[in-house]
Amino acid sequence: MRSGGTMELLGAWYALLCCLFLAVAQAKTVHEKWDISDQFAYPDCVRKLAVTINGHTPGPTIRAVQGDTVVVTVKNSLLTENVAIHWHGIRQIGTPWADGTEGVTQCPILPGDTFVYTFVVDRPGTYMYHAHYGMQRSAGLNGMIIVSVPPGAGPDVAEPFAYDGEHDVLLNDWWHKSTYEQAAGLAAVPIVWVGEPQSLLINGRGRFVNCSALGLASCNETHPECSTPVFAVVPGKTYRFRIGSMTSLSALNFEIEGHPMTVVETDGHYVKPFVVKNLNIYSGETYSVLITADQDPNRNYWLASNVVSRKPGTLTGTAVLAYYGGHSSPRDVPPTTPPTGPAWNDTTYRINQSIATVAHPAHVYAPPPSSDRTILLLNSQNRIDGRTKWAINNVSFTLPHTPYLVALKDRLQGTFDPRPPPETYNHTAYDVYGVQPNPNATSSNGLYRLAFGSVVDVVLQNANMLAPNNSETHPWHLHGHDFWVLGYGVGRFDPAVHPATYNLRDPILKNTVAVHPYGWTALRWRADNPGVWAFHCHIEAHFFMGMGIVFEEGIERVGKLPREIMGCGSSNGGHH
Amino acid sequence: MRSGGTMELLGAWYALLCCLFLAVAQAKTVHEKWDISDQFAYPDCVRKLAVTINGHTPGPTIRAVQGDTVVVTVKNSLLTENVAIHWHGIRQIGTPWADGTEGVTQCPILPGDTFVYTFVVDRPGTYMYHAHYGMQRSAGLNGMIIVSVPPGAGPDVAEPFAYDGEHDVLLNDWWHKSTYEQAAGLAAVPIVWVGEPQSLLINGRGRFVNCSALGLASCNETHPECSTPVFAVVPGKTYRFRIGSMTSLSALNFEIEGHPMTVVETDGHYVKPFVVKNLNIYSGETYSVLITADQDPNRNYWLASNVVSRKPGTLTGTAVLAYYGGHSSPRDVPPTTPPTGPAWNDTTYRINQSIATVAHPAHVYAPPPSSDRTILLLNSQNRIDGRTKWAINNVSFTLPHTPYLVALKDRLQGTFDPRPPPETYNHTAYDVYGVQPNPNATSSNGLYRLAFGSVVDVVLQNANMLAPNNSETHPWHLHGHDFWVLGYGVGRFDPAVHPATYNLRDPILKNTVAVHPYGWTALRWRADNPGVWAFHCHIEAHFFMGMGIVFEEGIERVGKLPREIMGCGSSNGGHH
Repeated sequence: MRSGGTMELLGAWYALLCCLFLAVAQAKTVHEKWDISDQFAYPDCVRKLAVTINGHTPGPTIRAVQGDTVVVTVKNSLLTENVAIHWHGIRQIGTPWADGTEGVTQCPILPGDTFVYTFVVDRPGTYMYHAHYGMQRSAGLNGMIIVSVPPGAGPDVAEPFAYDGEHDVLLNDWWHKSTYEQAAGLAAVPIVWVGEPQSLLINGRGRFVNCSALGLASCNETHPECSTPVFAVVPGKTYRFRIGSMTSLSALNFEIEGHPMTVVETDGHYVKPFVVKNLNIYSGETYSVLITADQDPNRNYWLASNVVSRKPGTLTGTAVLAYYGGHSSPRDVPPTTPPTGPAWNDTTYRINQSIATVAHPAHVYAPPPSSDRTILLLNSQNRIDGRTKWAINNVSFTLPHTPYLVALKDRLQGTFDPRPPPETYNHTAYDVYGVQPNPNATSSNGLYRLAFGSVVDVVLQNANMLAPNNSETHPWHLHGHDFWVLGYGVGRFDPAVHPATYNLRDPILKNTVAVHPYGWTALRWRADNPGVWAFHCHIEAHFFMGMGIVFEEGIERVGKLPREIMGCGSSNGGHH
Repeated sequence: MRSGGTMELLGAWYALLCCLFLAVAQAKTVHEKWDISDQFAYPDCVRKLAVTINGHTPGPTIRAVQGDTVVVTVKNSLLTENVAIHWHGIRQIGTPWADGTEGVTQCPILPGDTFVYTFVVDRPGTYMYHAHYGMQRSAGLNGMIIVSVPPGAGPDVAEPFAYDGEHDVLLNDWWHKSTYEQAAGLAAVPIVWVGEPQSLLINGRGRFVNCSALGLASCNETHPECSTPVFAVVPGKTYRFRIGSMTSLSALNFEIEGHPMTVVETDGHYVKPFVVKNLNIYSGETYSVLITADQDPNRNYWLASNVVSRKPGTLTGTAVLAYYGGHSSPRDVPPTTPPTGPAWNDTTYRINQSIATVAHPAHVYAPPPSSDRTILLLNSQNRIDGRTKWAINNVSFTLPHTPYLVALKDRLQGTFDPRPPPETYNHTAYDVYGVQPNPNATSSNGLYRLAFGSVVDVVLQNANMLAPNNSETHPWHLHGHDFWVLGYGVGRFDPAVHPATYNLRDPILKNTVAVHPYGWTALRWRADNPGVWAFHCHIEAHFFMGMGIVFEEGIERVGKLPREIMGCGSSNGGHH
């Protein structure tokens, strides 16, 4: 274990040398050519129009090796709808214009236009990609990015665990109503809430429980797109399951029946191994777990995805773990009922997993011992003009129509609110367990500007919603960075007390973290990646309703912006 | 009646002086402020997401006086979808960038952006507006433009008919499937056709026949948005009904039970009056008719809209004509069944109306006696890569992603196919009654370039579709111009024979004209409006499938283009 600034610096140098070596010796370019279009899909056997990549949802898995340059050529073949794609977990060091966040780092890609995303995958691990525009992610535009360790990698990079095979699992939730309808409902007065998902998907496949019973004309239970996913294992072997969650709403619990999981990686960072019966996973998170195929090989086993944190209204999402070489066939339905996961409202169960997730002893990157600035962020549900909104310190976020990156770098005036959002809230008196007495909020597209190289602490404070006795889990995702997760607590965060409880010894680095009901989560990072970075709840409806903020750092160090990210708002100057 | 070039010139001068007078004396500016958003609507009592203006579909009626400048400030509040709005029938003399045709005259307006359309309404008459992007028109974005005669207008402008009151009627057809689904179906292999409309709308209101019977959760038969439109009349008075059709697909027949209609205007031009029991009207057309309220005032009467030209699969669209002062109430349902219109497949009945539509004797603008160029355009249904398409001379039109107007005026290279599309087809041998032996076509975004000031004849030739014994009606709409309708015929047009049959005496000027099944329609206009102008079938699906062409004329005379129409394709140069 290293600690302190000097070792951190050495670590950074080592990583840099590592990269340079890779660049010379092995780094290659991975080309992807994507065509984005609306296509009819049957993820849960019910026909629905989906936003697809090359005709499919989820899209293809991007496979690369650490140090590779990934070049994704995105042609927008939608009819009237723009698109932008975010590479979730990739920090975009030196390429902030490739982060794919509409309104933050780029203008949307227009129908008929082609945009090329070029970025380096500088760390091995399990990542994802998805549309970052409107609610397109939930319309089907998402997938996985898997970055492997280069052959012969040094101890700083090589995986501190071994396995014989690998399976990839992308979890999702799915509605039959279009995202356009969902969004119109969210913006309506009063709000029209789409309700719980119709299905939970594993690798884009599920089964709507009422499909044939309802006599839906759009139901086709034999459609290959909703056939049950099968994960094959050889008895006695150990498998790495890379698991990511792209849910729109749901917090999930994932279980492989009869096979305890050893958690070894999350968001591209190695975890001090711990064993769970099942894994809580929030939207925007990834995990790697190891299982050993040591059960009776003459039957199959369930993979199960269950809703937690919200009262479930959706059937367990299932897939099959199939043993080779026994008496069962990969098509055999397991003889049991699928696992139903822990009690949906057992918050403590889930907090315990959060707390157990710390850095692997051989891969600790110690955080700076103190911060230069602390920002307290109250997450609350509010109202603006009768609309239901989410707000941070009573400010509900709206995206500007000129991307911040362009506006700030090229000094375009009047494109966003120049007043910075509040650094804190009334943290000495606010009753996080009560309904906010005055739920009216304001909206703003102002942003936080961080001194380049400074260390920032952010404490996310959860609270009660507009309805009494209700607080949800919010998975917050930071672009452009990983953050150290310094601590979790229940109730109101006290800046005079709780920082003393922070884990500065072996905190995990992550890009997405849960803020548990009525709880707080404390994060730290160094603002050393020039660019403009979104930080927001990864629940699609929550970000749509204002639950996010944006950070700028080192804008003056950003290189010349590509013309292709411009063309909207004040960044449309026509051609030259 | 005037005739010949000299009188035409004098007429033009007279019109110019007229305009100048108006500009000094009366012309004003009409401001409209529109917010475009997705909203739930109940046009036929079934809830459906619609693209709305200020929350409504249809949008507000624009009312102006000849010579006024109309300024429409359009804010796009859609989440991920762009928009562009066309002012159907307004020639945009001097303002070709305000025509609102995505890909032709402008880049689409991005979400969050505001675009200002400024144009002069230089002729009185009945016009419409609608989205001209993807299939957004059919998603609800449409409405009427009514341009009145200025008080004290001279005989060249004053209406050659009198009336006591006016009613406006916008006809439409309506589907429950979204336009996204419809478009995805059209592009699928094999084609997935949406089928006949669920409802016919009058002023945005209709009634889905199976609404409550089907037990649809989305059905609300008491929703005010689907209450029956009522048109009130005072006994003995004469009313002008301004009727426009915005149908996506349907050719319609409109009837006011018991009240013969005198046709007096179409597409902004005065018609030699003729009386019909009911009026055939095609998508993109407008008519004014006069009726006299001379029937029994103690009951109400139906307004009825029926499908013609296609085998109907949709209930008659209805509204109520209510007499004031009798014993009936405006809410009384007429005691009869609604008129069902003429036989849907009586093509002769419809051709006869077309032929009867000629210029009012006091408002004849004689066409040039001959043309400088004749273009023969075969309309055929074809296949490209297994997809069903429509093609013109076997070329299926695709829109470029850099607007022609910008590409041509500012000489941006490589933005469209420089090869002009064919001027003709094998008109001596083609069997318009047979299935095309080789239905494979090509696609292109090439355009026709017209010598400025030249006179062009265009003959639209209809033919059989991919299926035998089937030919549809295609209403073709020209942007930037009115054309003289010189003649209609059945069967194959023979350029050696049929021009001798042209009506050069009193042809009507129109902007939209029907090409009847297996027939041809001959048009003439002078290419004297600098700009780039679309000419296409006004059936939304047909234009989507390639049934259109584009003309350029006098591009060098177009003034400096506004920056706001740029930002897409090669016209995105970022900001300056």
